[in-house]
Amino acid sequence: MAGKNGKMREKSLTMDTLNPQVKAVEYAVRGPIVTKAGDIERGLQQGQKHPFTEVIKANIGDSHAMGQKPITFLRQVVALCSFPELLDSSIFPDDAKQRARRILQGCGGQSLGSYSASQGVDCIRQDIAVYIEQRDKGVPADWDNIYLTTGASDGIVSILKMLVSGQGRSRSGVMIPIPQYPLYSAAISEMEAVQINYYLDEDNCWALDINELHRAYQAAKEHCHPRVICIINPGNPTGQVQSKKCIEEVLHFAYEENLFVMSDEVYQDNVYSPDCQFHSFKKVLYEMGPEYFNTVELASFHSTSKGYSGECGFRGGYMEVLNLDLEVKAQLVKLLSVRLCPPVSGQAAMDVIVNPPLPHEPSYLQFHKEKSAVLGALAEKAQMTEQILNTVPGIKCNPVQGAMYAFPRIFIPPRAVEEAMSLGISPDMMYCLRLLEETGICLVPGSGFGQREGTYHFRMTILPTTEKLKVLLEKLRDFHIKFLKEYASLEEPKR
Amino acid sequence: MAGKNGKMREKSLTMDTLNPQVKAVEYAVRGPIVTKAGDIERGLQQGQKHPFTEVIKANIGDSHAMGQKPITFLRQVVALCSFPELLDSSIFPDDAKQRARRILQGCGGQSLGSYSASQGVDCIRQDIAVYIEQRDKGVPADWDNIYLTTGASDGIVSILKMLVSGQGRSRSGVMIPIPQYPLYSAAISEMEAVQINYYLDEDNCWALDINELHRAYQAAKEHCHPRVICIINPGNPTGQVQSKKCIEEVLHFAYEENLFVMSDEVYQDNVYSPDCQFHSFKKVLYEMGPEYFNTVELASFHSTSKGYSGECGFRGGYMEVLNLDLEVKAQLVKLLSVRLCPPVSGQAAMDVIVNPPLPHEPSYLQFHKEKSAVLGALAEKAQMTEQILNTVPGIKCNPVQGAMYAFPRIFIPPRAVEEAMSLGISPDMMYCLRLLEETGICLVPGSGFGQREGTYHFRMTILPTTEKLKVLLEKLRDFHIKFLKEYASLEEPKR
Repeated sequence: MAGKNGKMREKSLTMDTLNPQVKAVEYAVRGPIVTKAGDIERGLQQGQKHPFTEVIKANIGDSHAMGQKPITFLRQVVALCSFPELLDSSIFPDDAKQRARRILQGCGGQSLGSYSASQGVDCIRQDIAVYIEQRDKGVPADWDNIYLTTGASDGIVSILKMLVSGQGRSRSGVMIPIPQYPLYSAAISEMEAVQINYYLDEDNCWALDINELHRAYQAAKEHCHPRVICIINPGNPTGQVQSKKCIEEVLHFAYEENLFVMSDEVYQDNVYSPDCQFHSFKKVLYEMGPEYFNTVELASFHSTSKGYSGECGFRGGYMEVLNLDLEVKAQLVKLLSVRLCPPVSGQAAMDVIVNPPLPHEPSYLQFHKEKSAVLGALAEKAQMTEQILNTVPGIKCNPVQGAMYAFPRIFIPPRAVEEAMSLGISPDMMYCLRLLEETGICLVPGSGFGQREGTYHFRMTILPTTEKLKVLLEKLRDFHIKFLKEYASLEEPKR
Repeated sequence: MAGKNGKMREKSLTMDTLNPQVKAVEYAVRGPIVTKAGDIERGLQQGQKHPFTEVIKANIGDSHAMGQKPITFLRQVVALCSFPELLDSSIFPDDAKQRARRILQGCGGQSLGSYSASQGVDCIRQDIAVYIEQRDKGVPADWDNIYLTTGASDGIVSILKMLVSGQGRSRSGVMIPIPQYPLYSAAISEMEAVQINYYLDEDNCWALDINELHRAYQAAKEHCHPRVICIINPGNPTGQVQSKKCIEEVLHFAYEENLFVMSDEVYQDNVYSPDCQFHSFKKVLYEMGPEYFNTVELASFHSTSKGYSGECGFRGGYMEVLNLDLEVKAQLVKLLSVRLCPPVSGQAAMDVIVNPPLPHEPSYLQFHKEKSAVLGALAEKAQMTEQILNTVPGIKCNPVQGAMYAFPRIFIPPRAVEEAMSLGISPDMMYCLRLLEETGICLVPGSGFGQREGTYHFRMTILPTTEKLKVLLEKLRDFHIKFLKEYASLEEPKR
């Protein structure tokens, strides 16, 4: 294998020559724990022995993988769009056919197989604008501000990419909540922007504290140029739902400090607590008056992946972007055009979510029943998760007001912390690895989302079926008690 | 609208504060000509008068938008996967049902709505590996090296992203053909890599000349670190098909100079000239012996968007990556995992393309007929395009051996060149704008793909129906003759 001058040909791409920004990226939701869970799962299938018979994956918000059934109407529309010969079949209801015809008329050659415009199919963007107006009780929405995306992640990365510039102290800073969904930190690493952490208040149900925003902003100003504030509402991984007052404060802050606002609202349909209500950042901005509504730059993100449909695999989503400078808007469209368009079947799925059957239409009853069943079960599981976790000594869980996750705080004994440190892993990573190995439960350590130093958490989804979730929580409780005991007894000889 | 200190709130994101790398991106396939074509189209619909009654878009390889019908079998499988209740219906053939069942069994919860693994659905990756082995007459393919992607563009950008590092003279250089598909230059701009142009030989049917590769490499070494060579075969926009000898030379060169090879083979099914044959870079590498096959890092890209299916909207694709360092591979999977997964319906479409009906299966005849009809018509149109264009004085068109485009050289009179310069636009842009305004034909100027200085071209697709393409070519001929006359007569007074 001798190359030029008789040398061996070496790899051109090694860890030493890899893009350092790629190296810096971390994404715990699919990190080492999940890889290990996959290995164990394959082992079980091949007859390997473990102290459990199945792996329960509560690491990722993947509803269908956990057994949730698709919404029939949505899939009917997508199937009709995919194979329009079915439009002549009597097995599909008329309202599904009407939706499919409308979508296909918006596609080049009336085919899902054509590229759409870079911003998405026109009529789908129009449907989204109508949906937003209804959601926000009449606040005007212009479909020119709507962009279909490949899931919400794609939109978030595109907007961040626009905003990153400068070097050294003028490098763009991006304010993100801690704990956060690690797409944000990963994108910030990849773009070499500056991550500015603002900590959510765990003692106050993970509420956003405006004083903490000011603190984080002032501290960051010393070493970068804060340009964006990201909010996740309802919260991921923290499950809180923001109050209207809190949103007003954030928007006022963004107005004063000239920040671009990115509001990740993919869980807008996932609110369970009767005391909470989803308020869109846009509606609150509108109600603050024209000096806010006509000036603050706001991008809001939604998705087909969450809510009651849980259609992650379709990679559908949209963003609405307000008050974008017109020349900048042309640049955004140009940037999106390089990737041509978001998947058109995902756009179709998004259309059904914003344009579901109406009460007088044939599919309404079934649709309504399916939607209520999903959201009802989630609400029940949200409550059950909080309740059972809070019976465990050394675990403290805030109410799961919305989204799909609990992010409980776990007490890890000092000896366990020491042991993890000596292994070079974070204590909650060690905890989650042990949990996986002993019970088959796959969770994500809190360190993958960020947490105050010296505190430990994990994120678990509430997506397993009620029955399976109960088993999971009980196994978790038993594991935790055993874990505490083990490390407590280990400490005894030291006394 | 007074903000802090009574100042007006300014935009936080303006052309001055926009990411300069975004500003630098250019993507002509959806550039200003296409925007203008859209405006004219809307105008026509609203009753505006133009010297034509329809816009013919020959700017983008979007088969279905130009009237090509989907492959029935592919759409049947996707519809079955989307709405599995149809598996009980007698209107679908058994082989389509079998494919759909297999795909669904590979999906979490047997649903297209689940996230797949970051590399894609396992059984689809296995099918792709089998397809590649058959295509390459037994050269081994390991499904561990296969990654599903969101169209080929997504894979290309991911691999490039891994390879970009260093500053100043050690900044990564990326060798690309000129003319090129502008995804490459756009991605290079966005990542601030160094673009290294190697010119294809227009006088020799756009062949790749190994001496030109050496020239470009040696010149670039002075100011950057060349790390990658990109090849597009069959060529976009140039339509040539590379000879086996030429591929061997490129691979030998990459071996010697320790370059990572990216071969864009999305047009592998689009070869029309009876004298040409598609040779995959992988197969040629294999035949060069183990010292090549076991060392050269090669990423090859394919897509659902081209070939005979033309399913652009599904955003399906895959890449096969050979000889990747194992640690680097884990980094690539990590990077992909941040975006979770490619659209699963696009993965399903990709599966059908690599796993079409077999001769003994019920859908074989119809599938074969539809596939042959598409490829036969394209071959006919490729020949017709070359022939008619070469009858026009001042236009010279190489054979369209493959892909979906002609890239003819056009003579632009010096007075027209001067006029364009005075307008601050490239002469071929002026030419294409005039063509659009006078005839409704939408092409992309050669300057959007790169061309030798002082030469002018345009790219046109051969995708309109045979009838419409003939009309297009005749209108184009008349326009060109008129254009030449107009600027020739303008020059007379100068003599």
